[in-house]
Amino acid sequence: MSKVVLDVSVSLDGFTAGPNVRAEEPMGDGGERLHEWMDGTGPDGDIDAGVFREVNASVGAAVIGRRTFDLGVGLWGGTPWPEAPGFVVTHRPRPDLRGDNGGLFAFDGLAAAVRRAKEAAGDKDVLVLGADVARQLLTANLLDVIHLHVVPLLLGAGTPLFDGERAELVPDGKAVTGTVTHQRFRVAKA
Amino acid sequence: MSKVVLDVSVSLDGFTAGPNVRAEEPMGDGGERLHEWMDGTGPDGDIDAGVFREVNASVGAAVIGRRTFDLGVGLWGGTPWPEAPGFVVTHRPRPDLRGDNGGLFAFDGLAAAVRRAKEAAGDKDVLVLGADVARQLLTANLLDVIHLHVVPLLLGAGTPLFDGERAELVPDGKAVTGTVTHQRFRVAKA
Repeated sequence: MSKVVLDVSVSLDGFTAGPNVRAEEPMGDGGERLHEWMDGTGPDGDIDAGVFREVNASVGAAVIGRRTFDLGVGLWGGTPWPEAPGFVVTHRPRPDLRGDNGGLFAFDGLAAAVRRAKEAAGDKDVLVLGADVARQLLTANLLDVIHLHVVPLLLGAGTPLFDGERAELVPDGKAVTGTVTHQRFRVAKA
Repeated sequence: MSKVVLDVSVSLDGFTAGPNVRAEEPMGDGGERLHEWMDGTGPDGDIDAGVFREVNASVGAAVIGRRTFDLGVGLWGGTPWPEAPGFVVTHRPRPDLRGDNGGLFAFDGLAAAVRRAKEAAGDKDVLVLGADVARQLLTANLLDVIHLHVVPLLLGAGTPLFDGERAELVPDGKAVTGTVTHQRFRVAKA
């Protein structure tokens, strides 16, 4: 059964991007630091690289926030994972779009995007991209797993991952420490 | 050489206490949950208990925020650790005070409280109690270590641990996962 997974890099003070997110700096000021671990070049980079490979291998489909789509589509050169269709959450549905990498984008409301993504993902996971849509999913009880990559850095400002949501979580395995700390949590259903 | 250590339990969304902290609920609404791991009764409680013992064994002195002192002195029955003198940070110095457990409280400004606490701690650590004074120490470049006990819970509101501070941290060993996740970071000096 496909799980809906928020898989996100976050600073120790809870930001998923630095301040002033814009087309030229899609991670905001200083926010690129949050993704450096993915290069696998840090002191414990082999551990980080292993986690990164596992995540990528788990993706069957993506649910993508509208703003994340706008900022990301050029960078990704199509869907964020070529084989995995991307379901963009929007109030204004529009026709499907074929990305430059051949990946498929579809546009739908929140619940429908998740339902369609789960169907498309099969046994693999649905990855969620975008802090805002992730919070909506959490509130709507549609999020199954939160996989955090916690970067030992206080950004001081930026896009907060959480913003007033309340939830019980359960650690899903042990934390893995590479250059950053990787930990999965199951969301306890209300 | 004595280290100044912020050792604190924090929700996954970054709160060290729930909302409405008051004398009757010093951890705020729902905030007691952040300290449950210390009982060592959770599913991986032996791991948590081991961490808790190590922390307690490391304490040579405490630096305590004024508000934390006001809320805590009755609960602690004196200084938070009987053998370890507590240096309360305040703008209005007052005479030393002997706690009910025989521990000594002294009152001083931020830098003086830290200096005196380090002298008193000898080879052991100076533990910092209170999110506000911890942030002041971080900003003043007087904090050496941040030891977080991250509780898998989104409180949604409360007293934030960080509030706009910026800092580089370095993981100090691997994260330890019990009922909650324990991890130490060194503060990279500016």
